[in-house]
Amino acid sequence: MATAAVLGASGYLGGELLRVLSDHPSIEVVQAVSQSRAGQRLGDVAPNLERFQDLRLSPDASTVDADIAFLAQPAGEAMTVVPSLLDRGIKVVDLGPDYRLHDPAEYARVYGRPHADTDHLSEAVYGLPEVFGARIRAARLVANPGCYPTATLLALVPLLEAHAIVGPVVVDAKSGTSGSGAQPTATSHHPEAALTILPYGAPLHRHVPEMQGVLRELGAAPGPLTFVPHLVPLVRGILCSIYATAAGPADAGAWEALYRARYADHPFVRVGRVPRLPWAQGTNRCYLAVERVGDAPVVFSVLDNLGKGGATQAVQNANLLFGWPETLGLSRAGYGV
Amino acid sequence: MATAAVLGASGYLGGELLRVLSDHPSIEVVQAVSQSRAGQRLGDVAPNLERFQDLRLSPDASTVDADIAFLAQPAGEAMTVVPSLLDRGIKVVDLGPDYRLHDPAEYARVYGRPHADTDHLSEAVYGLPEVFGARIRAARLVANPGCYPTATLLALVPLLEAHAIVGPVVVDAKSGTSGSGAQPTATSHHPEAALTILPYGAPLHRHVPEMQGVLRELGAAPGPLTFVPHLVPLVRGILCSIYATAAGPADAGAWEALYRARYADHPFVRVGRVPRLPWAQGTNRCYLAVERVGDAPVVFSVLDNLGKGGATQAVQNANLLFGWPETLGLSRAGYGV
Amino acid sequence: MATAAVLGASGYLGGELLRVLSDHPSIEVVQAVSQSRAGQRLGDVAPNLERFQDLRLSPDASTVDADIAFLAQPAGEAMTVVPSLLDRGIKVVDLGPDYRLHDPAEYARVYGRPHADTDHLSEAVYGLPEVFGARIRAARLVANPGCYPTATLLALVPLLEAHAIVGPVVVDAKSGTSGSGAQPTATSHHPEAALTILPYGAPLHRHVPEMQGVLRELGAAPGPLTFVPHLVPLVRGILCSIYATAAGPADAGAWEALYRARYADHPFVRVGRVPRLPWAQGTNRCYLAVERVGDAPVVFSVLDNLGKGGATQAVQNANLLFGWPETLGLSRAGYGV
Amino acid sequence: MATAAVLGASGYLGGELLRVLSDHPSIEVVQAVSQSRAGQRLGDVAPNLERFQDLRLSPDASTVDADIAFLAQPAGEAMTVVPSLLDRGIKVVDLGPDYRLHDPAEYARVYGRPHADTDHLSEAVYGLPEVFGARIRAARLVANPGCYPTATLLALVPLLEAHAIVGPVVVDAKSGTSGSGAQPTATSHHPEAALTILPYGAPLHRHVPEMQGVLRELGAAPGPLTFVPHLVPLVRGILCSIYATAAGPADAGAWEALYRARYADHPFVRVGRVPRLPWAQGTNRCYLAVERVGDAPVVFSVLDNLGKGGATQAVQNANLLFGWPETLGLSRAGYGV
Repeated sequence: MATAAVLGASGYLGGELLRVLSDHPSIEVVQAVSQSRAGQRLGDVAPNLERFQDLRLSPDASTVDADIAFLAQPAGEAMTVVPSLLDRGIKVVDLGPDYRLHDPAEYARVYGRPHADTDHLSEAVYGLPEVFGARIRAARLVANPGCYPTATLLALVPLLEAHAIVGPVVVDAKSGTSGSGAQPTATSHHPEAALTILPYGAPLHRHVPEMQGVLRELGAAPGPLTFVPHLVPLVRGILCSIYATAAGPADAGAWEALYRARYADHPFVRVGRVPRLPWAQGTNRCYLAVERVGDAPVVFSVLDNLGKGGATQAVQNANLLFGWPETLGLSRAGYGV
Repeated sequence: MATAAVLGASGYLGGELLRVLSDHPSIEVVQAVSQSRAGQRLGDVAPNLERFQDLRLSPDASTVDADIAFLAQPAGEAMTVVPSLLDRGIKVVDLGPDYRLHDPAEYARVYGRPHADTDHLSEAVYGLPEVFGARIRAARLVANPGCYPTATLLALVPLLEAHAIVGPVVVDAKSGTSGSGAQPTATSHHPEAALTILPYGAPLHRHVPEMQGVLRELGAAPGPLTFVPHLVPLVRGILCSIYATAAGPADAGAWEALYRARYADHPFVRVGRVPRLPWAQGTNRCYLAVERVGDAPVVFSVLDNLGKGGATQAVQNANLLFGWPETLGLSRAGYGV
Repeated sequence: MATAAVLGASGYLGGELLRVLSDHPSIEVVQAVSQSRAGQRLGDVAPNLERFQDLRLSPDASTVDADIAFLAQPAGEAMTVVPSLLDRGIKVVDLGPDYRLHDPAEYARVYGRPHADTDHLSEAVYGLPEVFGARIRAARLVANPGCYPTATLLALVPLLEAHAIVGPVVVDAKSGTSGSGAQPTATSHHPEAALTILPYGAPLHRHVPEMQGVLRELGAAPGPLTFVPHLVPLVRGILCSIYATAAGPADAGAWEALYRARYADHPFVRVGRVPRLPWAQGTNRCYLAVERVGDAPVVFSVLDNLGKGGATQAVQNANLLFGWPETLGLSRAGYGV
Repeated sequence: MATAAVLGASGYLGGELLRVLSDHPSIEVVQAVSQSRAGQRLGDVAPNLERFQDLRLSPDASTVDADIAFLAQPAGEAMTVVPSLLDRGIKVVDLGPDYRLHDPAEYARVYGRPHADTDHLSEAVYGLPEVFGARIRAARLVANPGCYPTATLLALVPLLEAHAIVGPVVVDAKSGTSGSGAQPTATSHHPEAALTILPYGAPLHRHVPEMQGVLRELGAAPGPLTFVPHLVPLVRGILCSIYATAAGPADAGAWEALYRARYADHPFVRVGRVPRLPWAQGTNRCYLAVERVGDAPVVFSVLDNLGKGGATQAVQNANLLFGWPETLGLSRAGYGV
């Protein structure tokens, strides 16, 4: 049994963390931190979280006392609290972007400001368990990838590791609106968002350097990666459609075999037909389907941006940090509809 | 040919006014006013308004020079500009709530502040043409009703005028999110609004005194009126389900006959089966259906909150103010899907 | 540990039953029956049901061998299999309408055909545990109520038992489209359903006699009950808005106290502010809020039509039939978004 | 003034044709044909079509007597009626796929059956006015392109004609559900379609040979064209995201200039920022935006699948066939929300 604190508890990722942890057999939530809702009962903020109705939100991270801290805060905040948490012997899973790049110079270029905790930047392990599981088990600081990189990397790794594709890769990502957080904005205003599709992020989405870095580390860097996210009128869930050029003859069966082999021992990745998004909602599963279109392989990757693309993957990482089975507390079935 | 100015041009009602007027054979828009977007080209603010791409938004109402002004501003602003507009001989259709109640004391009670233009408050005519058409023709200041009262009153008037119902009336209104305007809020944030239904407005919605006042004026006041609006995950359109108690024997045919007779000469009210909301979108039509449920009459009333519940009704009122046919520029068919 | 069979396993209710049971600590699903998908692996029909991927769908009910059978079949089918199931000592929870009325004559009048199993019709217990819990514990055949009656009855019982309301009651129900099942129809065609609200069921919905029967049994029959369901563009979830007339002075606090007292020992009914539908999705919770609108009490009742209005309530009933705690396997938190 | 008949009048494209024609100053609809709803009044089938309430649907095409016939029928039906219509001197705009390919052998390969009217197959002009306007003016039989090819070709032509891109092209298309027609199917069932994104059409969508044929004809054939359509939870509208490789240096300004020059004289193509889908709904406009993502040009193309991708483009073609201005009856502004 381990104790946990959740920072950023009143956001969507924080709420999803609490929901998943309320059901975890070996993690006990002892603290929830939220600046904007400090002092309120969780029962008033998130009545869906039955088990935590009487937990009161704390205002700041300095009092955190737990075996592990989950950080679900806006970009830039994690790096101000991580040093102190680690010093106090608290394991950290950061769901934000602060520790996803290793190189301070690259961080500064991508995020437009210097990193405040370069000491730990290189120490942090990228929390994609299907790729870096062994390193995560040995770590104390995990940089949980976001939803787009998780969906994209899990879809690309098998083809790239097997050198089955060459040249440029196009990632056309479609995401529900919960991915942009709980704060109302003009693009997430219901009358604006409900009847349209909004591509965004040009000319260079911040996730591209992150994904390219991971692939380089694997010795599996593709050609130029064109990544365009689109907001679609859904709340939860992501579908990435990934387009590449086959290195050899077009063979959908052989491509699918690569996926099945690569993920045979990874229970959260499912290979098969194109899934419905509700199957993944609230779960830690990523569904992959590879099809032949013309002579090209096209991979479809589906997950829940708040689940495998966020909170449940953070819990999977916590399981690894504690040396537990990675599926602990994460086995429930997804919805059919 | 008349010239028109639109105040509040960057909001949803203002945009819809411009869209409808861009197609009106006898009204020429010469000015569009918006404080928040002043100085910008309409082509940058609302690219859908093809005809007005080069119209530049003016900052304030003091320079308005036109035959008619449409006011689509937040509550409280109209009463600060109406006196000056009327003094300069400009007809006014106000789409906001400032002039919908006649009595300054009732206004103060309902809106929680004194009225700034009590002189014109009693002069204003309530702009429901199917009820007050004759008065509107003779007016210079029209208080355009909002979407809920338009849908409710058109549905209730035939039964009440014929004394066909007695006792309390329940109005369960369902509205799309465009009704709450272009400003992002917590309740209109897409992840919050898209998957739920939100009743609001208790204990007393501001529209109730307005509707009761109109019905009293008709000598057709019902028993207690319980009105509960609900936000549903739609953008445009309203369905009001209206529940009453029959004064006599239950007879759906006789009830429908009352509606057909009442609206025989009113081309914008359609009586028949329950409509789909897209039929009404962008049009000035209100669709009414009356059914017998058990022994009670239940009336369904559908319109577009930005159309007959807003901008197109304002144009219908303008047509009457100018002595034109009320259908001028308002005859296009609605969408099937 | 008990064994269970699910009949109608390829429908929405059947799928939801399997999802919930896949997580139940004391029920083991040993059989799933589906005529339309007989012979197929559940892994091909419902990939979200991870634990049952290799379960093969059986074609008919005659081979069912289990401690309990959940029947999620079209109306009219349960009564052809229930006698044989009971004869073989199998407990039955029927999620369809076959056993919800006690009187064969009333059944024939409401459903337009004679009942095929009148012997068991009067034996069946109406499966609303918050009302008939004691009887359910002693039963072998439970008629699980549908979504509308569950939402309505839980909302009405406290006011009626306390004689706090008088006269007619209006129930304006709004439901997602999954309530009408997995079979495509003209009204559930996405282009037809996505942008509108569809009232249906006039002149008399089949649920009205069912609800009135239950309330009479409680000695708490209201005046005329006007019930109008509406299809709204949601998939899962119901909101019933219930309008009544207060028997005494309007007092929202006193009304809410009635609800809190009535459901103090019923963990699945939550009394408080108006909930978001996602809180209830996939759970067995019914959220109730009572407000004062004018002088009238208006009750809002929210649940998941496939959850407390269907599959999870069936599992709650099964828990009672086996003498287990009613919350067994049903405690997970709902989604925040 | 010309007379027109609409065949397939009860489908979505047929309904949209009638809506647009009800507003056309020089076309009078004299006949509407529908096998499935023959004999019914249009007022009962499509109450939104105010002007045609009393038009009765005819059962078959043999009695058509008009200057022009619009064919909005299922694939395979047009080729059985076109010879007779042309013989009788009736101009034809076919909104279906029967005449979109020129080569009978290719038709048979793509559609899996021989063509029944090869005489006229080579005569038909592909109805994309921005490309083949001159030929359309001289034609009597126009094969109106579908929504995907219209959106894709208008987006690709400027870059390809200018040789600004090289190598493979990826078209990731997102479409609302009205594109698949009025007939309910499993994939368009609201509970299935509303919460997910469905890629379909692998391994080869029928539109690919059609698009490649047009581009070859222009001497502007790209490299391999990977086209994947996705159903998204919208009703009307398409967004195509088109990914290519620049032939020279990346220069978003230069790319946009190509678009502005190419479409300077084409009023229905708008070049600028990424549009909202409602701007295009019900209109004949195609909105194009070109952006630089990394070093690659990415083009976003938006139109209404029932408008510029269907019915309004058919009317634009009719205007050309009659020698009228192409904008006649097609100038109304789109919706802002």
